Amino acid sequence: MSSTWGEHLKLSIFGESHGTAIGVTLDGLPAGQPIDLAEVALQMARRAPGSDPTATTRKEADVPEILSGLLNGLTTGAPLCATIRNTNTRSGDYKNIDAIPRPSHADFTGNIRYNGFEDARGGGHFSGRLTAPLVFAGSICRQILRSYGIAIGAHIQSIAETQDEKFNPVSVSAGALDALSSVSFPLINPTAEAVMRQAVEDARMAGDSVGGVIECAAAGIPAGLGSPVFGGAENKIASILFGIPALRGIEFGTGFAAACMRGSEHNDPFTVQDGKILTKTNHHGGILGGITSGMPLIVRVACKPTPSISREQQSVDLKSRTPATLVIRGRHDPCIVPRAVPVVESAVAVALLEMLIEMRGVNL
Amino acid sequence: MSSTWGEHLKLSIFGESHGTAIGVTLDGLPAGQPIDLAEVALQMARRAPGSDPTATTRKEADVPEILSGLLNGLTTGAPLCATIRNTNTRSGDYKNIDAIPRPSHADFTGNIRYNGFEDARGGGHFSGRLTAPLVFAGSICRQILRSYGIAIGAHIQSIAETQDEKFNPVSVSAGALDALSSVSFPLINPTAEAVMRQAVEDARMAGDSVGGVIECAAAGIPAGLGSPVFGGAENKIASILFGIPALRGIEFGTGFAAACMRGSEHNDPFTVQDGKILTKTNHHGGILGGITSGMPLIVRVACKPTPSISREQQSVDLKSRTPATLVIRGRHDPCIVPRAVPVVESAVAVALLEMLIEMRGVNL
Amino acid sequence: MSSTWGEHLKLSIFGESHGTAIGVTLDGLPAGQPIDLAEVALQMARRAPGSDPTATTRKEADVPEILSGLLNGLTTGAPLCATIRNTNTRSGDYKNIDAIPRPSHADFTGNIRYNGFEDARGGGHFSGRLTAPLVFAGSICRQILRSYGIAIGAHIQSIAETQDEKFNPVSVSAGALDALSSVSFPLINPTAEAVMRQAVEDARMAGDSVGGVIECAAAGIPAGLGSPVFGGAENKIASILFGIPALRGIEFGTGFAAACMRGSEHNDPFTVQDGKILTKTNHHGGILGGITSGMPLIVRVACKPTPSISREQQSVDLKSRTPATLVIRGRHDPCIVPRAVPVVESAVAVALLEMLIEMRGVNL
Amino acid sequence: MSSTWGEHLKLSIFGESHGTAIGVTLDGLPAGQPIDLAEVALQMARRAPGSDPTATTRKEADVPEILSGLLNGLTTGAPLCATIRNTNTRSGDYKNIDAIPRPSHADFTGNIRYNGFEDARGGGHFSGRLTAPLVFAGSICRQILRSYGIAIGAHIQSIAETQDEKFNPVSVSAGALDALSSVSFPLINPTAEAVMRQAVEDARMAGDSVGGVIECAAAGIPAGLGSPVFGGAENKIASILFGIPALRGIEFGTGFAAACMRGSEHNDPFTVQDGKILTKTNHHGGILGGITSGMPLIVRVACKPTPSISREQQSVDLKSRTPATLVIRGRHDPCIVPRAVPVVESAVAVALLEMLIEMRGVNL
Repeated sequence: MSSTWGEHLKLSIFGESHGTAIGVTLDGLPAGQPIDLAEVALQMARRAPGSDPTATTRKEADVPEILSGLLNGLTTGAPLCATIRNTNTRSGDYKNIDAIPRPSHADFTGNIRYNGFEDARGGGHFSGRLTAPLVFAGSICRQILRSYGIAIGAHIQSIAETQDEKFNPVSVSAGALDALSSVSFPLINPTAEAVMRQAVEDARMAGDSVGGVIECAAAGIPAGLGSPVFGGAENKIASILFGIPALRGIEFGTGFAAACMRGSEHNDPFTVQDGKILTKTNHHGGILGGITSGMPLIVRVACKPTPSISREQQSVDLKSRTPATLVIRGRHDPCIVPRAVPVVESAVAVALLEMLIEMRGVNL
Repeated sequence: MSSTWGEHLKLSIFGESHGTAIGVTLDGLPAGQPIDLAEVALQMARRAPGSDPTATTRKEADVPEILSGLLNGLTTGAPLCATIRNTNTRSGDYKNIDAIPRPSHADFTGNIRYNGFEDARGGGHFSGRLTAPLVFAGSICRQILRSYGIAIGAHIQSIAETQDEKFNPVSVSAGALDALSSVSFPLINPTAEAVMRQAVEDARMAGDSVGGVIECAAAGIPAGLGSPVFGGAENKIASILFGIPALRGIEFGTGFAAACMRGSEHNDPFTVQDGKILTKTNHHGGILGGITSGMPLIVRVACKPTPSISREQQSVDLKSRTPATLVIRGRHDPCIVPRAVPVVESAVAVALLEMLIEMRGVNL
Repeated sequence: MSSTWGEHLKLSIFGESHGTAIGVTLDGLPAGQPIDLAEVALQMARRAPGSDPTATTRKEADVPEILSGLLNGLTTGAPLCATIRNTNTRSGDYKNIDAIPRPSHADFTGNIRYNGFEDARGGGHFSGRLTAPLVFAGSICRQILRSYGIAIGAHIQSIAETQDEKFNPVSVSAGALDALSSVSFPLINPTAEAVMRQAVEDARMAGDSVGGVIECAAAGIPAGLGSPVFGGAENKIASILFGIPALRGIEFGTGFAAACMRGSEHNDPFTVQDGKILTKTNHHGGILGGITSGMPLIVRVACKPTPSISREQQSVDLKSRTPATLVIRGRHDPCIVPRAVPVVESAVAVALLEMLIEMRGVNL
Repeated sequence: MSSTWGEHLKLSIFGESHGTAIGVTLDGLPAGQPIDLAEVALQMARRAPGSDPTATTRKEADVPEILSGLLNGLTTGAPLCATIRNTNTRSGDYKNIDAIPRPSHADFTGNIRYNGFEDARGGGHFSGRLTAPLVFAGSICRQILRSYGIAIGAHIQSIAETQDEKFNPVSVSAGALDALSSVSFPLINPTAEAVMRQAVEDARMAGDSVGGVIECAAAGIPAGLGSPVFGGAENKIASILFGIPALRGIEFGTGFAAACMRGSEHNDPFTVQDGKILTKTNHHGGILGGITSGMPLIVRVACKPTPSISREQQSVDLKSRTPATLVIRGRHDPCIVPRAVPVVESAVAVALLEMLIEMRGVNL
């Protein structure tokens, strides 16, 4: 693992927030798959800062350059590498971080892990900016999945205390998921938007930040993907999703709420419809024993409140090992949730394509 | 992955519920580590059925035979393999499952995944029985970790609606964890026990089952373990924990509750104590950017209610593809949570030893 | 890697020469494949000691017990584990090895690698006895490969200075390979046998040993297996073949002799036969750019002379770090080559099945 | 594997000969290691075409741009990615290859593997040009190894029939290896150079090509690196070396010649010198049981004659499946051996650093 993920489809992410460039290599893509770069750009734009008032005003062009693996709009089957140049980085903003770690960031642990040699500017390799190559990779994978009938979409389940409706886990449609995955503030019930935005704005005005929950679904997954024990869908999806810096929890199907249910409620009765075996309810979230059931995949993730806040915070000076106060200047997102939505969708897309290749072989 | 886990310490689990034997191979253990087999037996007994009224009355000897890797009570460094014979298996109990999948079990998905050739008896390779070799492996790993100052323990956070207290994430001690990890119904506040047991008994009498939450902590972990992006502590711990059949969700530190907090609450201020850098609070659960911080590790998992209930359930006949009713006879746990506690501890132990070996090399 | 091999089909070998048992787990076998255990026994017998005068007179029953993954003679798709009990081990024979490493054995390096905690008896985990589980695994894999039209066979290319004929790399047939892979002293031209046996006998009488070369071929491999750069057929086959203790070199196709050829000689012209693209010659040994060409696979390996000889040898005492003389008593093979033939075939079989699964998916 | 190699140090190579760029990501480098880019450039230049009369006159700048992982001349510990732009590519030269595969190239097998979607220009991802990122990676690794006392160097063992002397496997020194690894036509005995060059020139004039053997050594390796069975030094080194397109065989120590020796000759007696345990001879090439012995590593590889020759060759038209003749125009190396020397050294360097990290942990 480390910055490399996958067995059948290998993802290798590189780059540091204020280095020359960030990027990703996807090794193991099936050959001959058409890729629409405009759709890739759309997903990159959903994640990019500066496009929504909930996010930092910092703008990044985030234009990927594809170096290999794509010819005449089709995958060649060889590794597909794309890089994104780092621009518009005000290094001065992070000047004192080197010595004074930001609470709830990886500054301190990265310093220990790398003996002080890490590129600490802007969080370096731990920066949320590293989710840009993940979105690039996911947008490639989801296009391939769509040609096999699989659609992925997510919505903002909550910001602070405000909840959106949840997916109908039995009937969520590919069309609905495609619609969600093309907008920057996706909600099932758009009436929540104004309250959510106000919560973010309130936090910003208070020099503070808020968190939230993202719910992601995938429809059209064939039954039978995944492998038992450690090769299950939950294992694979969780192991890639936790590559997203802000996540603190993951649940599948009914998730933590299942802990308060009885078996007779939580068990999903099987039924037959048009000769196809389905379940009447979908508390299992499309996964039984690690193997996909053919029902929609449902996964929910908790995002912590953005750790970079403008209020003064207590920290320590790493060199003198004495208490120190920290004021983070820079521009930061008071809420990372909307920008994290396409990242979550992307991680799920990579995991599902990995599982589809495992089942069907290198060229699907 | 599949039934194999790990990069630096490789775990390979095999066996089917009603086959000849189940077992595990641990490849990559450091050489020269003393292993107390009585302590292994204690952990195996905590997981084994028949020892607590919340569990099935089915008894399994679950005596592991060590085939390799241990000489004169010390690890040799070569793969350590142990097998556990399957005995006391009433195959007749599962007779109709082959054709009629049990709701919320892997019977249906396993049948699709393996084209009908799976050993479906008792859930086969998907059975909860496969957690016995995981506990064996974990009990080896936790003994090694202890000699490096790391203690692991878990408690029943909740059964049905009844909650235990939570760990104090800042001050949880090795001693408290060791005490919890030696009993069969571990609670921080034992007053919850009677209510929890009653909830289980009520479910049993109703031919039903209940779920719960397990909270696991580890103390004494050095700062700096883990790697960024996909090699982080959350990625590794989640990818092994989801090898436990009943789990539906995982959260680290404050977890899903973080989604409702503000950054100024959730950020953990750094401080210095006796020259060591700590955090005053521990919402981060001992992991920042995937790297351990030196604070206690806190992870919580949701267990679904046991899917095997004695009530009649709706299913389908896989051959005729027509509706069918299913009555599961056998003996089953009305609540899997107490038996799952040592399994969760074990999975965390394997993941932590993997990370310690990654950091320090093959012989620590 | 370590004692674990493979990405799509994972092999995990465990055991020590004088421990309780040795064995292997194969994770990732396709489900529903018929396995003939008599054929497995035949291959195990070819490798077992005591069956041919070139080998040690030490007898080992080497009867594998299958613990999982096989039901009614068909693979279930779950991990297939088999163990072989260690019996007839005269530990006394190795008494002084612990302190005095045998030249050309792993006694010294194993002692360093494992800080003196290794099970040194009989070579422990480094023993040639660990090739028994590899033959078990290979005999499972080759049966599956045969049902896809792939045959594997090898012959003794040379013992000491005496050469057998080489395979015709263009026309070697499945029938010829099957015939070779069922006998204990396989030769293309049986007239070499008497001379070879005499060379072995001469060495034995001199308290010495001899080496040789094994040539292995596989016919019926579809074109297009393997992946570029590090996932090529040579990479995979070499990485598993070097798991056989005695090997010192590997070559594919024309191999080292290619270094003295001109391109116009070595290049294999393409041709069309019955609509199928072939090459007229096969210097490439069935692999171009790491990918199989559909022509027979040809691989040759060099076996060193058995290091355990009865002559007195110079060594050192590991504890006192002073010179010491060593006389190895026990019973040893004056020539390992005939027993290594099924091991080489087995390693190639595992590698080819791995590549077939990679290409076609988990259930082929 | 595929285009990704390694467990502890992960190498991911991407790019196609005539695509936008080629490159490599190294994930798992220890932090804080000084890297001299001038030395990297020297190694890149040794491999680059156009610098020696034995090679093609085609010139490539081959200037790597480092995108991440290096700050102020020190590794940061995060993935180090470098790209090399493709320039000076005359695509017209390869115009007819798409349809008519070049004998002894991957054109045919790549076409099958990727269903005709591969970037076939110049061999695409199978091109020898992909060894440039491998040399980049190796030149990083060898600098790190040197600071731990390990030196790597290789020489041209033979071109066509002309042999250089062999390394003295017992006494080869770091100084001698460093000297060899800084020149473009490295020989132990320079008197062979004129004859070798004439053989290449004769081949060129005849529109043909020649092959050869490269011998590589490494001195200063600590005893105890590597793991048993499939994690041995031979397994790791072979699995990366076969990523070099032209290689057809590999041998360690005395290699294939060991097959004709007796045990009493081939066994290396142990001795003690200044308190250190050594062997008096080194037929084992520094590896016993897959574990390094502390003696110099010796590995030899056979390079086939360059397949791209200017003579007319027989091939087939892939579309019509009819015979066709092929004349390769472009500029090609009549002998790849000198340019392959730094590639072999580089592959060995990556493998050795992987093994050192495995033994000592992420930060050595």
